[in-house]
Amino acid sequence: MISDAALAEFRAVAGPQGLVEDPDLIAPWLSDWRDKYHGRSVAMLVPRSTEQVAAMMRVALAHGIPLVPQGGNTSMVGGATPPADGSALILSMRAMNRIRSLDPAANLAVCEAGVILATLHEAAAAAGRRFPLSLGAKGSATIGGLISTNAGGTQVLRHGTMRALVEGIEAVLPNGEVHDGIAALKKDNRGYDLKQLLIGAEGTLGIVTAASLRLVPGIADRCVAWVGVEDPHKALALLRRMEASVGPVVEGFEVLPEDTVEFTLGVVPGTRRPIETRAPWHALIEIDLDAAAEGPSAQARMEAALADAFEAGLILDAALAANETQAESFWKIRESASEGERSQGPALQFDISVPIADMPRFMTEVAAACEARFPGTTAGSFGHLGDGNVHFHVRAPMAEGAETARAWIARHGEAATRFVNDAVVAAGGSISAEHGIGQMKIGEFARLAAPAQIHAVQAIKHAFDPGGLLNPGKLVPLAPVR
Amino acid sequence: MISDAALAEFRAVAGPQGLVEDPDLIAPWLSDWRDKYHGRSVAMLVPRSTEQVAAMMRVALAHGIPLVPQGGNTSMVGGATPPADGSALILSMRAMNRIRSLDPAANLAVCEAGVILATLHEAAAAAGRRFPLSLGAKGSATIGGLISTNAGGTQVLRHGTMRALVEGIEAVLPNGEVHDGIAALKKDNRGYDLKQLLIGAEGTLGIVTAASLRLVPGIADRCVAWVGVEDPHKALALLRRMEASVGPVVEGFEVLPEDTVEFTLGVVPGTRRPIETRAPWHALIEIDLDAAAEGPSAQARMEAALADAFEAGLILDAALAANETQAESFWKIRESASEGERSQGPALQFDISVPIADMPRFMTEVAAACEARFPGTTAGSFGHLGDGNVHFHVRAPMAEGAETARAWIARHGEAATRFVNDAVVAAGGSISAEHGIGQMKIGEFARLAAPAQIHAVQAIKHAFDPGGLLNPGKLVPLAPVR
Repeated sequence: MISDAALAEFRAVAGPQGLVEDPDLIAPWLSDWRDKYHGRSVAMLVPRSTEQVAAMMRVALAHGIPLVPQGGNTSMVGGATPPADGSALILSMRAMNRIRSLDPAANLAVCEAGVILATLHEAAAAAGRRFPLSLGAKGSATIGGLISTNAGGTQVLRHGTMRALVEGIEAVLPNGEVHDGIAALKKDNRGYDLKQLLIGAEGTLGIVTAASLRLVPGIADRCVAWVGVEDPHKALALLRRMEASVGPVVEGFEVLPEDTVEFTLGVVPGTRRPIETRAPWHALIEIDLDAAAEGPSAQARMEAALADAFEAGLILDAALAANETQAESFWKIRESASEGERSQGPALQFDISVPIADMPRFMTEVAAACEARFPGTTAGSFGHLGDGNVHFHVRAPMAEGAETARAWIARHGEAATRFVNDAVVAAGGSISAEHGIGQMKIGEFARLAAPAQIHAVQAIKHAFDPGGLLNPGKLVPLAPVR
Repeated sequence: MISDAALAEFRAVAGPQGLVEDPDLIAPWLSDWRDKYHGRSVAMLVPRSTEQVAAMMRVALAHGIPLVPQGGNTSMVGGATPPADGSALILSMRAMNRIRSLDPAANLAVCEAGVILATLHEAAAAAGRRFPLSLGAKGSATIGGLISTNAGGTQVLRHGTMRALVEGIEAVLPNGEVHDGIAALKKDNRGYDLKQLLIGAEGTLGIVTAASLRLVPGIADRCVAWVGVEDPHKALALLRRMEASVGPVVEGFEVLPEDTVEFTLGVVPGTRRPIETRAPWHALIEIDLDAAAEGPSAQARMEAALADAFEAGLILDAALAANETQAESFWKIRESASEGERSQGPALQFDISVPIADMPRFMTEVAAACEARFPGTTAGSFGHLGDGNVHFHVRAPMAEGAETARAWIARHGEAATRFVNDAVVAAGGSISAEHGIGQMKIGEFARLAAPAQIHAVQAIKHAFDPGGLLNPGKLVPLAPVR
């Protein structure tokens, strides 16, 4: 239980607006956006400065009260939901939402943790630059959350995950000290790299309060194409051939199977099939050039690359977006793919990666093996083939509708989850490519990770946060199962 | 003391060739290459496999014997020299020198820790690829050492430090467990990133045994230019202008002051001044294109960029290397700059970084302030301006020759070191940009790092290696001084 004395101390450091106690204001932040995880928090801390975060951490430390750092609350794995027993307080970083500086000459933006991704996109664009990481939740997701989960998205192929874009970091550590590593140093070999350790730590080792982020030149010329291909092997061969011929200007390369495209077109108003051919697989490709790019236009490069690929027997059909509206409509299909899949009934979802060269085999063989092992299911995947990362799903049998499916998941969900994750591990892959561990994957992480990794994770957590006060119940398995 | 029983156990796991006891064979590895640090090691472990490394670590653990991992022994900070008291054993990784695989299609090489950098360069070139990290010690430095020190070099501007090139890692942890993270996964958010933690840890958290490394396309077309500029401000403005006009194809951008060029020409046989103008500062610029590059040649881009810079008043004079021989001779001057500087007598050397935009001010103001504070000294810097990293030196007064200088360093060296490092910290910079901490910088690291950082470094070390058995006396300050 959280004592009145502790709340009074939090109130003293938080100021009048910094401790929210109205249950109606707290309620929206107690569950994840998919409504799978539900927590309690008698109050919500809303710091306005790094110093306030540090002071709050010290009060938490003195009273042994766990804190759950929260940004836009868009976690896919229940990573920002407080525990159900009400033992912890939400620490909302949303009020620390200032862009401290944006320097187009240095290609740097210094943002507080609560800055919303779309806000940074707009600020960068206004300065002739861009922040090259985007994802569906960009209107809610915050910089702090994106850093703490090492977010990915659709531009990783060219620009990397969040890790590649963070140049400096400021954070409050569980002992109440402030780590000031905000200066953007391209080279810094002073001891262990705390920045790298905090990125992807899901708020369990420290509270990210601000970061220096790398910007890139704005897009001066882009071309988006929709291509029909025989299978993921051909799709990957196409990507490799394009990289060799047009260089590192391919920014998007997403693949979808025909059925996902079909379902998506069925549920998203205003979408239409980009190519007439009902190819077994589809690839969405984007080439982006900035103002410094020499040589042919994006469209000329795309046309040459696709003509060459057609010649080489790698593609079945292709359409180039004739204008921005059409380009957006192509992307709309990709971005709505999850919705299209959901329309077919309840499914198990996996966010997985394997070495890129092995991904085509994984996508086809493991889907088939899964359907054979669990009769009546439909397994498939779509997503970031060029990153070796797809979203793999197993749709439950729908013989008698959604109820059958839900019953199937209750009965076989765990076995099917183990089946898919075992295949990922056998391929040397990751059971969490971009969503993190949170609370959803902690059991499978503990089951599948090597003892060396689990022991190291536990040792690091204990070293930073011996009292287990930061984001309890997330990421760190309590004991190795294996 | 290391008991005979312990040595017998090491011999049992190491095999006949794996435990070197001949003092003549050990001797070359007891001192650093600059002969500043001298250690003792009664025997040298030479494992042939990851399993042997793990077995050796377990024997070390059982007997409480510290191990000093060593690659090419080219540390600039005494990072691979065993302690002088003979309490530790050298663990030489040089016999684990196999390139396990090299896949040009996937742009990946899997190397054991003992592979020498130049060997990897050759293997990549033979496959039409390259490994884009190079430095003076490339004929001796090993992959394991380069990873453990997060090495830099002259190609960081475009390709990043070692950290950016390591895609997967295999290591033996201090508890004797093997961390198998060798699979190259572009996205992997399973818990804390052990790979990132081991990179730059200087062998204090684990022994890197192998790594998956990223390759890039071979160079199809390059152009090297030597440019005279007024000052570092103009040099940085030139780089920024070039990046905006020719894009991310500038691979090298090094600056040197006139006196360093003069001294270097004086000591390196066969070198000649690339431009006639005695400009106050010089920049060495390289543009590299791979086969996929569209548009003008490297030379055409360089010419256009320099004509534009001349027009804008940024450069005083310029010469393009007419052929490969001349290009190499330009680089020879840069690569011999340290030798040129050394010819002028004893000096204090600093490997420092500050935010890039602030580097021109730092180079000029701090050098002047240092000379004012320590009359008779000459302070200056040269190096990787585009990375915000230069090698700053303070030459001791030479009134009565080298002896005077050595006496001055003995008397004032510590104060001058503090003066320069204080200026680095005041600028938000790093006192170790690319060389690491080792034993040489541990005192200044402890003096200058914030308590939050020191505490975190100590906590991580203790979590991984509570017995202090891996590379003792390096990187980790025993207690914060500040």
